[in-house]
Amino acid sequence: MLIRISEIEIAPEYLDEYLNILKEEAEASVRLEPGVISIYPMYQQNDRTQIRILEIYEDQAAYESHLGTPHFRHYKASTLHMVTNLKLIDMTAIDEATMPAIFKKLTK
Amino acid sequence: MLIRISEIEIAPEYLDEYLNILKEEAEASVRLEPGVISIYPMYQQNDRTQIRILEIYEDQAAYESHLGTPHFRHYKASTLHMVTNLKLIDMTAIDEATMPAIFKKLTK
Repeated sequence: MLIRISEIEIAPEYLDEYLNILKEEAEASVRLEPGVISIYPMYQQNDRTQIRILEIYEDQAAYESHLGTPHFRHYKASTLHMVTNLKLIDMTAIDEATMPAIFKKLTK
Repeated sequence: MLIRISEIEIAPEYLDEYLNILKEEAEASVRLEPGVISIYPMYQQNDRTQIRILEIYEDQAAYESHLGTPHFRHYKASTLHMVTNLKLIDMTAIDEATMPAIFKKLTK
């Protein structure tokens, strides 16, 4: 499993437009791609231009396949000029086993 | 719903001990507290002392109740001297509606 936190900073004048495009992209990825387990986008309450996305892919192949999808390519091309900073931070889950128990609560 | 990313830095000499205590605390919270939806701890692959936790509580009351539980109080008291930096960052989900779809995949 690949787990990542993306830290993305958006130019304020593009923020609303960016959020709409990201929302569409995240929704399509989770719905259409079995190997995309989570693309969960949030923004910081004290600074909405600071976006954080919890991304979970089944494996490296699922991630690479994601990069080639029309919805990801559209997102990337149409938001490139809006992004002022981008960090992709690879993470490891401290307790992989509890994940299903946690997220079962979210599906109720 | 309360969503937060906790950014925690741990003194390297305490890291293994800290991870064990955090893992126990996260597991107990999700299992015993209906209002604790997620305490999902990760570390950065390029620096394991950088801990990130995605925390989701049902509401403010669930969060306050969590702070009074024996497992949280034990975690806090026993790790206080291990923590060299702590930021609690309140987040908003960009698309609350897709969350169940995302996390349903994790329960399989």
